Amino acid sequence: MEIFDAVEVIAAKRDRRELSDAQIDWAVAAYTAGQIAAEQMSALAMAILLNGFNRRETARWTRAMIASGRRLDFSALGRVAVDKHSTGGVGDKITLVVAPLLAACGLAVPQLSGRGLGHTGGTLDKLEAVKGWRADLSAEELAAQLERVGAAVCAAGPGLVPADRKLYALRDVTGTVESIPLIASSIMSKKIAGGAAHLVLDVKCGSGAFMKTPERAAELAGLMVELGLDAGVGTAALVTDMSTPLGRTVGNALEVREAVAVLAGGGPADVRELTLTLAEELATAAGRAHADPAAALADGRAMDSWRAMIAAQGGDWSAPLPQARWSEVITAPATGFLTRLDALAVGVAAWRLGAGRARQDDPVEAGAGVELHAQVGDRVTAGQPLATLWTDTPERFGAAQAALTGDAIQTAPAPPPPRPLILSRIGS
Amino acid sequence: MEIFDAVEVIAAKRDRRELSDAQIDWAVAAYTAGQIAAEQMSALAMAILLNGFNRRETARWTRAMIASGRRLDFSALGRVAVDKHSTGGVGDKITLVVAPLLAACGLAVPQLSGRGLGHTGGTLDKLEAVKGWRADLSAEELAAQLERVGAAVCAAGPGLVPADRKLYALRDVTGTVESIPLIASSIMSKKIAGGAAHLVLDVKCGSGAFMKTPERAAELAGLMVELGLDAGVGTAALVTDMSTPLGRTVGNALEVREAVAVLAGGGPADVRELTLTLAEELATAAGRAHADPAAALADGRAMDSWRAMIAAQGGDWSAPLPQARWSEVITAPATGFLTRLDALAVGVAAWRLGAGRARQDDPVEAGAGVELHAQVGDRVTAGQPLATLWTDTPERFGAAQAALTGDAIQTAPAPPPPRPLILSRIGS
Repeated sequence: MEIFDAVEVIAAKRDRRELSDAQIDWAVAAYTAGQIAAEQMSALAMAILLNGFNRRETARWTRAMIASGRRLDFSALGRVAVDKHSTGGVGDKITLVVAPLLAACGLAVPQLSGRGLGHTGGTLDKLEAVKGWRADLSAEELAAQLERVGAAVCAAGPGLVPADRKLYALRDVTGTVESIPLIASSIMSKKIAGGAAHLVLDVKCGSGAFMKTPERAAELAGLMVELGLDAGVGTAALVTDMSTPLGRTVGNALEVREAVAVLAGGGPADVRELTLTLAEELATAAGRAHADPAAALADGRAMDSWRAMIAAQGGDWSAPLPQARWSEVITAPATGFLTRLDALAVGVAAWRLGAGRARQDDPVEAGAGVELHAQVGDRVTAGQPLATLWTDTPERFGAAQAALTGDAIQTAPAPPPPRPLILSRIGS
Repeated sequence: MEIFDAVEVIAAKRDRRELSDAQIDWAVAAYTAGQIAAEQMSALAMAILLNGFNRRETARWTRAMIASGRRLDFSALGRVAVDKHSTGGVGDKITLVVAPLLAACGLAVPQLSGRGLGHTGGTLDKLEAVKGWRADLSAEELAAQLERVGAAVCAAGPGLVPADRKLYALRDVTGTVESIPLIASSIMSKKIAGGAAHLVLDVKCGSGAFMKTPERAAELAGLMVELGLDAGVGTAALVTDMSTPLGRTVGNALEVREAVAVLAGGGPADVRELTLTLAEELATAAGRAHADPAAALADGRAMDSWRAMIAAQGGDWSAPLPQARWSEVITAPATGFLTRLDALAVGVAAWRLGAGRARQDDPVEAGAGVELHAQVGDRVTAGQPLATLWTDTPERFGAAQAALTGDAIQTAPAPPPPRPLILSRIGS
């Protein structure tokens, strides 16, 4: 590999020049190997954030990130491997339902997931609310589970895109997360290395999401679809609303409970709609005569897959889920229609109740979170319960309630205009 | 002091918001104390470089830098303290002449100087070519020498703007040097902390200087003058040409020899002109009936001050200066007028011959450098010696000569238009 001077590479992007393929390959590899210092990479990341990457630079950066580690390959499986990724929202438990549902349709779903940070929850934290369930699988265990059960949700091993592991931790403390090219390459390098043949992206948009506007969300979605197609992965993206929480629960065990309700054929309409839309994207893309996801949900096969998936990772699907010891109720401030129940505010409240973490090594409370008794558009009466806050540490109630004051919850005499959950679709 | 979150401060500048006084005070103090990590400060420095600082932010940053250490105070001296700073050029030995000259005019000249890096030389490296001379003075030794001799050139102690010491080293390896607000605050924090009542800045402009255009140089000069006046230091700046070397020598002992020639009443016209102009700026600003610098140069008092200044720091002014063992001559490529003798090319050649250093801890050769036999505008004959290269390590000749090929040296049938040495003056 050609060797460059780190300051020259930083200066090139600082001065709004394009980085060459060789410069990008070197920068990513040298940073991963410790030959570019953290303070140099953070300066480069800020220059990339402010001066941008064009499409070629972003694709090459993604490719260099993938090349820093091992790319999984499930082509020898008897099932087509598919993957779903969400950019993170409040109450987003879709993975818990989609993975077993697609397994029930005959697909393989290697779902390499993360833990939560800040107000957005992590799929691994949620599943760890299930008694005995463990997130760590070796590559061999993962392949065997996919062959046998069809679905696995597990932590990405240290060999999967080590460049991203190191770079994301750096960006997190240097104010350099908010770059669409860097976000897209971080997500897509992991998803491409994750080995699926088909991928669907759920790009959240709104107060509870990283992307606040439909325009920014569509820009990120479009770039990620291009990066996936470039790498030979069939990729489509949905931009979906995250102005209000998805479903009626936010918190680890609370969300597992709701996911199980959906797998049982019930659950909130919005969770069901998004689950089926995403599942149908992948079932269709996989191109064979896969069972209709709606049928697999209705006839109990999805629930069977859920139980098998949990059990395969040591979990006891029949054990009661943890419940927090303390609760407080939030009531409707006035009679009328609920016009606003802000996703960010609810996410922050759940985080403060103990469902999330401020730092990577903090523990989470399995039972903590927010249970919603109404959703935007519902008619409510003053004093009626709107939400129950749950925690094992009641001194957290004050801070959680504070997140829900101000304009976080609003009512009006007239119902709000209907807001579609799925805002747009990008892909072939 | 109010405490901030480093990522929030970085994000504010990243998002083109102004930093508050409290944020700036905290950022500089916390970085100096190790509470902001290097990778965070480099990201902030890149955001400042790309998104800018307004006048208030720059002034506050400068003030915070000064507050990181000790501000010298010479107000109890029997002499008015004055200081001269150059932004760095090729062949710039003016400090060696100006300091004793102003001492001879009855002023105190505490000249806190640095070492060279890259193609620009450092005043301390030059004086270390004098047998026995030492750069380190304690604050007490400095004050005593100023009282007795009037001039001292010495290394800044570790207590002088420690924030800049740490920040400059970081900027140097992260591509964040090239920011006018950060350059101005770095220079002016050290100069204001250096304790002079009056300051003159020589802002170099051209290929051999950091500022390549008169516009950038004037922008930097204007900002630095404002920062000085804000801090109660009488400040003026000259923008001077650095498209070709100053004088006829580039290299440590070579430049001392030329400085002594000027002190003896001779030397190149450009060095004499700039020396007297800068000295007159300060003598006039000091406001009392100081002796005319031109007279102090002519009647030998400046030379007396030089000898006293060198001797006070252990130097033997009467000892022969080191001379390099090996030399090679560069000749004129054609007959005509010398229209170009590029400052950067000559500076790089001297550096490669051993006069400068690539890294802060590298040694320098006292005798190495370039001696010019002609200056821009001179009539030359093909084959006539234009320059002599000097070094103790003859394997360096090839790289040094390579710096002087291409368009570094040009002749033409007609003389070039006269180029003024002093391009503009900024100040009251």
